[in-house]
Amino acid sequence: LTDSLTDNLSIALAHHPVQNKHGDTITSAVTNLDVHDLARCARTYGINTVFVVTPLEDQIRLIGQLVAHWVSGYGATYNPKRREALEGVQIIESLEAVRETVALRHGTPPKLVATAARPPGETMDPVGLKRLLEAGAPVVLVFGTAWGLAPAFLQTADHVLAPIRGRGDYNHLSVRTAAAIILDRLLGDRH
Amino acid sequence: LTDSLTDNLSIALAHHPVQNKHGDTITSAVTNLDVHDLARCARTYGINTVFVVTPLEDQIRLIGQLVAHWVSGYGATYNPKRREALEGVQIIESLEAVRETVALRHGTPPKLVATAARPPGETMDPVGLKRLLEAGAPVVLVFGTAWGLAPAFLQTADHVLAPIRGRGDYNHLSVRTAAAIILDRLLGDRH
Repeated sequence: LTDSLTDNLSIALAHHPVQNKHGDTITSAVTNLDVHDLARCARTYGINTVFVVTPLEDQIRLIGQLVAHWVSGYGATYNPKRREALEGVQIIESLEAVRETVALRHGTPPKLVATAARPPGETMDPVGLKRLLEAGAPVVLVFGTAWGLAPAFLQTADHVLAPIRGRGDYNHLSVRTAAAIILDRLLGDRH
Repeated sequence: LTDSLTDNLSIALAHHPVQNKHGDTITSAVTNLDVHDLARCARTYGINTVFVVTPLEDQIRLIGQLVAHWVSGYGATYNPKRREALEGVQIIESLEAVRETVALRHGTPPKLVATAARPPGETMDPVGLKRLLEAGAPVVLVFGTAWGLAPAFLQTADHVLAPIRGRGDYNHLSVRTAAAIILDRLLGDRH
């Protein structure tokens, strides 16, 4: 299906600027499984690009090798479904570079929509995000690793998505599962 | 909230009987992150018990140590939220033992509801599963690792849940993300 929802949507998995346990802004290490899980989710929901954001050169090299293994190396024949998912992964040095790349691709700057377990201010719900996408705006949905996106980034993001509520107050999902749930709420074929 | 949906529901992460890439029935190795992610998801959605099913004695010992670290060891003070999640994990040798344990706990044998990306026969949708839970039946929702639950188990399960549809035909989620999406569809606070 042609689809303004997914044609205009990219996702970014940020390893900087994120918080550690104490609230300090850090750069986290890339976790292989995060890249696999997000790429497979994105592919399932028709999203073309997953930006893996890290400023660290050795991590850029390492994840580049991981992706190359599955896209064009031995992994591509061993598991073609994994290739199909990882083809959409683009490793990039900063969220600013994500913004510029998407602006070039779409001819207009994207809205950056941050995700957070405990947003500091006003949030946008999935219906609002759908409206934004249907109106034709390119959107990058940004997920933070470690203890989540740094407050300074949340303040400069165009919007912050409303957090996932389960049943009760516990809200400590991994970035892998939180991203999956958010994509399903936004794009899934629900009953 | 008291809640017939969650009081009657447990989940099981099965490492046997599951399939490998070629469709052979195997026992897979336990992946630490699967245990963490499922425990955190279960806690988020108010589910009390996550059975980690493996017949392998060394794996039972290993996962026992992992859980003990977070529940009563150094990890419990380092990250209390992780403790809260992992307290619900019970390591057990077979799905038959899961059935017996839940039967003892609830006074009546549970229904085992299997999950599969490509179910071989009739399926139950999330609404049907909700009705079953609301009617007071104890239910164990079973997730398979590796290439999914073995066909022989799917045939003997009481029900098979309808698979997740994204947008298109690609359906190769990790067990971590598939379980998260299914729990959210079943129990999430949706808009």
